[in-house]
Amino acid sequence: MGKSKLISPHGSNELKILLLEGKQHEEELKKAQKLPKVVMTSRETGDLIMLGIGGFTPLEGFMGHEDWKSVCQNMKMSSGLFWPIPVTLSHDKKLDPGTEVCLISDETQEIMGTMKISESYKIDKEFECKNVFSTNDPEHPGVQMVMHQKEWNLAGPVKVLSESYFPTEFKGIYQRPSESRKIFEERGWKTIAALQLRNPMHRSHEYLAKIAVEVSDGIYIHQLVGKLKPGDIPADVRVKCINTLVENYFVKDRVVTGGYPLDMRYAGPREGLLHAIFRQNFGCTHMIIGRDHAGVGNYYGPFDAQEIFFKLWDGALECKMLPIDWTFWCYKCGGMASMKTCPHGKEDRLFLSGTALRKGLSEGGDIPAEFSRKEVLDILKEYYAGLTEKVEIKMHGHATGDAEIKKK
Amino acid sequence: MGKSKLISPHGSNELKILLLEGKQHEEELKKAQKLPKVVMTSRETGDLIMLGIGGFTPLEGFMGHEDWKSVCQNMKMSSGLFWPIPVTLSHDKKLDPGTEVCLISDETQEIMGTMKISESYKIDKEFECKNVFSTNDPEHPGVQMVMHQKEWNLAGPVKVLSESYFPTEFKGIYQRPSESRKIFEERGWKTIAALQLRNPMHRSHEYLAKIAVEVSDGIYIHQLVGKLKPGDIPADVRVKCINTLVENYFVKDRVVTGGYPLDMRYAGPREGLLHAIFRQNFGCTHMIIGRDHAGVGNYYGPFDAQEIFFKLWDGALECKMLPIDWTFWCYKCGGMASMKTCPHGKEDRLFLSGTALRKGLSEGGDIPAEFSRKEVLDILKEYYAGLTEKVEIKMHGHATGDAEIKKK
Repeated sequence: MGKSKLISPHGSNELKILLLEGKQHEEELKKAQKLPKVVMTSRETGDLIMLGIGGFTPLEGFMGHEDWKSVCQNMKMSSGLFWPIPVTLSHDKKLDPGTEVCLISDETQEIMGTMKISESYKIDKEFECKNVFSTNDPEHPGVQMVMHQKEWNLAGPVKVLSESYFPTEFKGIYQRPSESRKIFEERGWKTIAALQLRNPMHRSHEYLAKIAVEVSDGIYIHQLVGKLKPGDIPADVRVKCINTLVENYFVKDRVVTGGYPLDMRYAGPREGLLHAIFRQNFGCTHMIIGRDHAGVGNYYGPFDAQEIFFKLWDGALECKMLPIDWTFWCYKCGGMASMKTCPHGKEDRLFLSGTALRKGLSEGGDIPAEFSRKEVLDILKEYYAGLTEKVEIKMHGHATGDAEIKKK
Repeated sequence: MGKSKLISPHGSNELKILLLEGKQHEEELKKAQKLPKVVMTSRETGDLIMLGIGGFTPLEGFMGHEDWKSVCQNMKMSSGLFWPIPVTLSHDKKLDPGTEVCLISDETQEIMGTMKISESYKIDKEFECKNVFSTNDPEHPGVQMVMHQKEWNLAGPVKVLSESYFPTEFKGIYQRPSESRKIFEERGWKTIAALQLRNPMHRSHEYLAKIAVEVSDGIYIHQLVGKLKPGDIPADVRVKCINTLVENYFVKDRVVTGGYPLDMRYAGPREGLLHAIFRQNFGCTHMIIGRDHAGVGNYYGPFDAQEIFFKLWDGALECKMLPIDWTFWCYKCGGMASMKTCPHGKEDRLFLSGTALRKGLSEGGDIPAEFSRKEVLDILKEYYAGLTEKVEIKMHGHATGDAEIKKK
């Protein structure tokens, strides 16, 4: 197949790349070392890297007050550009417009970039949370993130100087939009569906991915390699699971795997929309939205993230949703199915709670192959066995029923 | 869900319905009885009924020479309208323009309609066959049909007076485009994929249908209830198989079944295109095209019918192709899969030839459940057992290995 014309990035004919390279990088880094420091959280660092590699095209930096408010309220920038979630940076004091600052990662202390302050402003955090997360509940991990932000938001265009440890720690998985686009072009793909992953890939995820492969040129299995809430399976284990599954159960020519550096916000529907925007920047024409996409707890209805796509105005988003219903193994169907394709009863279907899965895995019990591939389960068993040992050592005794889900 | 706006019929804002009803029907039928008779083959009769119910919208009758030639050569009418296969009526003599004729079914002798002759013309049958079937081989059943046509083609607008035995013999399955559209509207469906069937529905067909259900509002399982080539399974048995499968393995709200009165032409790619046109008239937005669609023998490459859709000019056809690769059960995948989704080897996959299937069915042997659902196999076994008995009686002895595929 020849070269294909891929979907344009969001709101732009080309990727807006803010990551400096070569001599420009060298000079800006030298300059940065003398600038006043602004320390960024993990979420803010991830956002900055996405700005750097063009994942957040066409944004040029952290949002000002007018954009912030309009995004919260109407899911659009003051320019009218569709954007569903604020991309902001907080700080403990205001800074004068025109000030240049050095952006530091609080996790690694590395200089990540610079920003020229255009505006410092205070926000109504409750307003942001109600609009973005549809809740103020302090138990919601995304709400927590916002409530823990510092007093002032700093806005302005950024220059990005590092992708942190992502290119090394997630070598072969971490990918820039220019890289995924290059692969898609080389393969001559036109229609590409993105699968969002933040968990090990079980048969339900495989089913979503394979439906997408059947009806498009290929699938982009795109996993979050940033931070999750405590208790979730860490990125390196997830990467291993996904690679193993892809290796054994996918046609190589039809799949590309990649990782992106964001933290989860757990904003459900609004995050589903953000997922579609940046997948478009990575070159995808379709975004798979399944049950409880980007959700947590019971804050969102299982298909709220699908509903929100239907409510978008014309021209808001070029990347289309590929909505898929609740999926499971059905013993009567003798295969994977969804509520749309399987007419049978609950008693014929295999459902496994996260707790039952963790318990089975850590105790070395059997998880049905209809739920997850053996190769994936082996990796997870090993991981959970390791965790249990750590807990046992810490407890100087036997692990209790739920001890294995606690992390060191 | 509320009423939805369905896809427009092909080349028209509304269905072109040429079937008369009520008083108009009564008067035309009275007139028809006094007109000179033109006897139609089964294929021509099926085409006339499709013209009558709007399945061939926007055609108004049998094609004249200019349209015939342009359709053969360029897949378009002289008006520029996309149309891939000639819809013509042959007769043993020419008739003067302006003559009105009564159209009779050679199968039932029923008056099917009337036509006002606009033109009588001779055709180059070899030219038609080469263009439409890509072959002149007299073994090709579609070529045979054309070569057996009479010397003259009669063109002109038609009035249709009957749907023959289809509404009674295929009660509950035979459907007009206005009927399928009404159901789709009532269900609030917007995206509807059509599955073409001329065989009992095995798991491969079920898999195609279910992929379509996963990615659209619903599936229209649309079976040919006209004539097939000798040796194929007759329509009443197929209908029973399909109904049983749908009853047991589909979600009722996501499927509509229907039947249409055409004979198979076995024109492969070109017939795939015709299938998409009339499915659009029935209200479908997508046409599933799998392996060897509408093919016979080895006349067409397995995916020629997909290729031809990619070559259409912009605006030719509103109904989109949903192309699906070669499908099968894979024991390693533990499910249905296609060449696009299964990376395993031939030895892991279940393939069954038509001959092996017939042999297994007629001898009461086991056909794997991975190939076809038990409920469907039971119906087919009964059918083949009946056939074998007939053959045995005829032969006054034992059925030989292949005897069961011969028909009375």
